[in-house]
Amino acid sequence: MGQICHVTDMKLIKELLSQDEALENIVVNGWVRSRRDSKAFSFFALNDGSCVGNLQVIVDAGIPGSEKMTEANTGASVSITGNLVPSPGKNQKWELQAVEFRLLGGAPEDFPLQKKGHTREFLREIAHLRPRTNLFGAVFRIRSRATLAVHQFFQERGFHNVHTPILTTSDCEGAGEMFQVVVPDKKEEFFGEPAFLTVSGQLEGETFATALSRIYTFGPTFRAENSNTSRHAAEFWMIEPEIAFCDLKGDMDLAEDFLCAVIRDTLDYCAEDIEFLNKFVDKELLARLEGIVAEPFARISYREALELLEKSGKSFEYEYNFESGLQSEHERYLCEEYFQKPTIVFDYPKSVKPFYMKQNDDGETVAAMDVLVPGIGEIIGGSQREDDLEVLTKAVEEHEIDAKHYEWYVELRKYGSVPHAGFGLGFERLIMLLTGVSNIRDVIPFPRTPGNCKF
Amino acid sequence: MGQICHVTDMKLIKELLSQDEALENIVVNGWVRSRRDSKAFSFFALNDGSCVGNLQVIVDAGIPGSEKMTEANTGASVSITGNLVPSPGKNQKWELQAVEFRLLGGAPEDFPLQKKGHTREFLREIAHLRPRTNLFGAVFRIRSRATLAVHQFFQERGFHNVHTPILTTSDCEGAGEMFQVVVPDKKEEFFGEPAFLTVSGQLEGETFATALSRIYTFGPTFRAENSNTSRHAAEFWMIEPEIAFCDLKGDMDLAEDFLCAVIRDTLDYCAEDIEFLNKFVDKELLARLEGIVAEPFARISYREALELLEKSGKSFEYEYNFESGLQSEHERYLCEEYFQKPTIVFDYPKSVKPFYMKQNDDGETVAAMDVLVPGIGEIIGGSQREDDLEVLTKAVEEHEIDAKHYEWYVELRKYGSVPHAGFGLGFERLIMLLTGVSNIRDVIPFPRTPGNCKF
Repeated sequence: MGQICHVTDMKLIKELLSQDEALENIVVNGWVRSRRDSKAFSFFALNDGSCVGNLQVIVDAGIPGSEKMTEANTGASVSITGNLVPSPGKNQKWELQAVEFRLLGGAPEDFPLQKKGHTREFLREIAHLRPRTNLFGAVFRIRSRATLAVHQFFQERGFHNVHTPILTTSDCEGAGEMFQVVVPDKKEEFFGEPAFLTVSGQLEGETFATALSRIYTFGPTFRAENSNTSRHAAEFWMIEPEIAFCDLKGDMDLAEDFLCAVIRDTLDYCAEDIEFLNKFVDKELLARLEGIVAEPFARISYREALELLEKSGKSFEYEYNFESGLQSEHERYLCEEYFQKPTIVFDYPKSVKPFYMKQNDDGETVAAMDVLVPGIGEIIGGSQREDDLEVLTKAVEEHEIDAKHYEWYVELRKYGSVPHAGFGLGFERLIMLLTGVSNIRDVIPFPRTPGNCKF
Repeated sequence: MGQICHVTDMKLIKELLSQDEALENIVVNGWVRSRRDSKAFSFFALNDGSCVGNLQVIVDAGIPGSEKMTEANTGASVSITGNLVPSPGKNQKWELQAVEFRLLGGAPEDFPLQKKGHTREFLREIAHLRPRTNLFGAVFRIRSRATLAVHQFFQERGFHNVHTPILTTSDCEGAGEMFQVVVPDKKEEFFGEPAFLTVSGQLEGETFATALSRIYTFGPTFRAENSNTSRHAAEFWMIEPEIAFCDLKGDMDLAEDFLCAVIRDTLDYCAEDIEFLNKFVDKELLARLEGIVAEPFARISYREALELLEKSGKSFEYEYNFESGLQSEHERYLCEEYFQKPTIVFDYPKSVKPFYMKQNDDGETVAAMDVLVPGIGEIIGGSQREDDLEVLTKAVEEHEIDAKHYEWYVELRKYGSVPHAGFGLGFERLIMLLTGVSNIRDVIPFPRTPGNCKF
């Protein structure tokens, strides 16, 4: 175990590839991506998952441990001591000249990730190994960085993170079908009443926004919907900020700032992974991301949106009218053809939105907004919340909601009620936008969909 | 809505209280903590949850909106335009001289949080309102900051965050009783097989550590245990780093670094909240936290620990021997009396630990470790993982585990196996340590315990 040391003493390949000067007698650990043998030496391409790039390692026959070299196939793990020296090759700045070679773990020939292309479907079957590929390494590094960027964005602006509950007896009405939670072989309810997996932390989030002023949730949510599409999963992470003393205008501002900030952060910190994905997954990725942050989003009311559809002269598959809401093809026309940039549509008809949204003075619309992104569609949905006790109480009745589960929620309007607003964002949709990956199953470490709960 | 503006234009009370210079014509929003009236003016103590401190506001009778002042009771929400000026009072540097007063939402006299003491039990009953108290404001601001500190600690050290699944068909053997997830009124299993709520993300985390080298999880976990103690909840958040190319020594180093870094971050960024908690909740809090980071932790093997207990001459309630493990009273003796500082005990007997831990050469112990903290007890548990395919396969058999659910896990040892290690930390235990709050129900926004799933 002599070469396995304190993690912070151990150089990652990412650090080595960006060195300014040569280093002597360092230890590098990683997995073999490929090996080329000649009589006197072998070339290894070594990857440790810290970045998409491999470190080239030259191992001369005859150095200590080199007799194990031929067992170090693609997929094997090795620990190599050597000197980092400028590479004469044109593909890399540095290479490692090995002085001691150590095989940690071999990889038999049935190792599934041999150096060749694999279908995404096959890789989903081996979700425990796919993070060892360039594609999934890039996706999950971006997912990780974006997680940090989300927290930093909000906390820099005075927002507090709140861990709203996963187990719940309320259902954020209309958000979707819920899973129920039981204790196997027990008849009594563990919680004294039926409990479910949350579909949204918004309602609980509002209780904290009306105390700490600015909060955000960032946690898993669930839908028990039997839909097998490339955009739906039974388990996914949601980000839900909630802001006291804020109206719909402030909500739209925050949503736009948020999306641009996370994209800029990804472009800055994950440049190599984005470059890789732009080359091999989606050739428009970089242009799309740079386009989003280039200028302010368009903003139009729902009524104006209907007029633009009318004026377009286009024939759409789905009809639209005031009560219908917008279909995906309508949203695409607006942001991809008409504005050709991200577009926020606001003031939706009351009839297509949930009970908690702030009713506008026109009696027909609510202060709701959706952010539409070219090539992606709706990515953020939000609203100002109804803060009038009477109006909300009446809305609960009109929507035929079981009032007893919402007493605490309604009570926020009884004691020191404030105008407040928030939005929700599916984190996986954001990762799909950031990576250009088109199937939600490929941006979740172990995706859960109908019939699939392996690993 | 004229006073409700873009959040980043709006000053939080925290920012105002730390101003360097006076400000004219600003808008401050918040909730009334108390009001004192005289003939010519009223004093308000205004809080917006951004910090424990209140802003003193002086509202002269006769300014626009002041006729609503008498409705602005404790709990009411207000929006006040005014000038931030040096305060002649000795309790604060700044105060707001109001020029316009606006009542946003009143608070009837039955508002439960009148200015008097409330029991923690009562406050749990109104979990939707308790974040408006000084105590819970402080606790949840610290919880939020600690969340960011956790992410920053790991990402600065090259770790990638992984969202391991909540829904699972494996059970991280022996970690605890599991909740099952069903679809109401459906006979068929949604996932084709019984699915449960995770008790630990470790096993899935290992798949990513053996690809990206350094990872950590940070998400909710669940236990269906019918235990009503001050330290157990059915839903809580766990942090589980996993490090490839790392042995138990590196694991202990990381655990110690981690704990000290999060404590230092809290002392730096939440100084006022810590001061408040030190005054009103636990008078030893500050000293305890500063003590933990003051010097290196003690480290002893389990065998040495037994010898120290023997030599102590103390009579313990529970007997101990090599096979018994340590009881809480033994752990307390070691860290509170003998070492009087955080203590890491390592190399535990194989028989008291799960199947996946690395077996030591003595044949009797495994490379496991627990971090014990004075006044708290065990806060971190970790181990090096068994990376030998044959040994692990045998351990699965010996523990009578259903091997078919762990094929993927065992396979990590077949392809490029590496020494790796990790640990787990209950985030709520950490928050209890950071705040001095002694009941887990008071560090979780909406705690879930047997019989309790309200809100």
